[in-house]
Amino acid sequence: MSGVDDEQRGREEHLVRLVLDSFEGTPDPRLKELVQGVVTHLHAFLRDVRPTEAEWKQGIDALTAIGHITDERRQEFVLLSDVLGASMQTIAINNEAYADATEATVFGPFFVEDAPRVELGGDVAGSAVGQPCWVEGTVRDTGGRPVPGARLEVWEADADGFYDVQYGDDRVAGRGHLVADEEGGYRFWAVTPTPYPIPHDGPVGALLAATGRSPMRAAHLHVMVSAPGLRTLVTHVFVRGDELLASDSVFGVKESLVRDFVEQPPGTPTPDGRDLGGAAWARTRFDIVLAPGDTGDRPGGNN
Amino acid sequence: MSGVDDEQRGREEHLVRLVLDSFEGTPDPRLKELVQGVVTHLHAFLRDVRPTEAEWKQGIDALTAIGHITDERRQEFVLLSDVLGASMQTIAINNEAYADATEATVFGPFFVEDAPRVELGGDVAGSAVGQPCWVEGTVRDTGGRPVPGARLEVWEADADGFYDVQYGDDRVAGRGHLVADEEGGYRFWAVTPTPYPIPHDGPVGALLAATGRSPMRAAHLHVMVSAPGLRTLVTHVFVRGDELLASDSVFGVKESLVRDFVEQPPGTPTPDGRDLGGAAWARTRFDIVLAPGDTGDRPGGNN
Ligand SMILES: [Fe+2]
Ligand SMILES: [Fe+2]
Repeated sequence: MSGVDDEQRGREEHLVRLVLDSFEGTPDPRLKELVQGVVTHLHAFLRDVRPTEAEWKQGIDALTAIGHITDERRQEFVLLSDVLGASMQTIAINNEAYADATEATVFGPFFVEDAPRVELGGDVAGSAVGQPCWVEGTVRDTGGRPVPGARLEVWEADADGFYDVQYGDDRVAGRGHLVADEEGGYRFWAVTPTPYPIPHDGPVGALLAATGRSPMRAAHLHVMVSAPGLRTLVTHVFVRGDELLASDSVFGVKESLVRDFVEQPPGTPTPDGRDLGGAAWARTRFDIVLAPGDTGDRPGGNN
Repeated sequence: MSGVDDEQRGREEHLVRLVLDSFEGTPDPRLKELVQGVVTHLHAFLRDVRPTEAEWKQGIDALTAIGHITDERRQEFVLLSDVLGASMQTIAINNEAYADATEATVFGPFFVEDAPRVELGGDVAGSAVGQPCWVEGTVRDTGGRPVPGARLEVWEADADGFYDVQYGDDRVAGRGHLVADEEGGYRFWAVTPTPYPIPHDGPVGALLAATGRSPMRAAHLHVMVSAPGLRTLVTHVFVRGDELLASDSVFGVKESLVRDFVEQPPGTPTPDGRDLGGAAWARTRFDIVLAPGDTGDRPGGNN
């Protein structure tokens, strides 16, 4: 706004005032707050960056393209929110730190309701390819008390970077739910997480390309944990040493969520005696602490 | 942000910094400025209004619905930009006041390229219904010199509130272009402008309804004027006394663009001797002053 004189500034401020006033009669107070917030920050953006009329039209065209590629199976607006860090900021705002409770991160688009029950020590991977990986831990509250019966949903991509819902058939693989034991303990077989790109053949991919950014996500295992009277936790376990930890395309990485995935040489005995035919495997431990709060609803749909 | 402690504020600011940094490598400097501007103001919005995860999902769903109703004939994102005052703010930013040059306003979605030539004193209305209205004026530069040969594009809705492109047939009505005479003068017959609603049967209409706002635009005649070496002017003529002047749904009204449309009793002789069969008519005068500048391109397409 450096080159803007007082008269011009006055005209621009007057317009913002007019628009804010037009929403003064909004009956629902929260809607009024939201829409006036949109107006305030949208106009601040325009007055700061000062787009030409052609640039504003390019923005309209980009939103149009994002709208047109979005359907029931693909949510490009969520991708946009993800790569602009808006999804992660919304998570941060709604999951303030509480004592030593485990931190939350993005939900992602690949969760599926009603994933199959897997017994403790069972295999979540199914037909998902990848290095076998033993995952174990406990669920406790911030007072250190075990949470028996806590429900864990876990889901992950295979070693080729695909979730089962991307296979194009009806296989369920790399996902399931478990119920913690009387000591809050849990354990299961999965595959060692590997990096994968977010869908990048659309407008959001074009934005990443034009800005020199990678679509790759740091390797991760999704975990959602819920129990009565505790805040539902939506998070990831990340892999120490993954070089993408510093450049995750959706800004989901938190240092407190990074774990050692310890490589086990071929032939190393497994915790439950499972025969891996002499293959190498890995193991990790992820102890979970839930904040107090409502169990509440799970984060909505695609976000 | 009143209830936010230092630790939480720090986490939120850190995330904004991470996202801004991710765009540091953008090769094109203007794109970098635009996208980092989006990030800065988007995160400021989130941290200010603090949407719940469900509210953020509602926003995503609204953008999705706007994308899905948008096609070649309907641009709901432009409508959204219009009702949030963003279109008008972009106009204000790109058309700073210059001496006594006529002020600009929104382009709107109803302009059509290659509208027919209408001779000076001819009829722009064609089959558009409405009260006959004589419009005349001059085109001058800010030094007061006439601009002979200036090109004027004019377009307007009929008395039922419809533009010809909304008729559903191929009629051209209520639009045309004229060329100013050697003294920069122009004159034509049109219809007296009447108010009309912007399309409000979609998501933007739902937003207006939920916030208690009207979709009505103040009555106006669109005028675009261009001449070599002068800044192309996109503007409206508004009608003094129109009760919608203070609540135009797209914030396009400027006091300097409001004119008297003087009612002429039935039988009043017309300026050019045209026989109106004894009908009442109206007349107005709109003298236009163009700022110096490039003729440039017309504002793009749908905006
Ligand atoms: Fe994922
Ligand atoms: Fe119009």
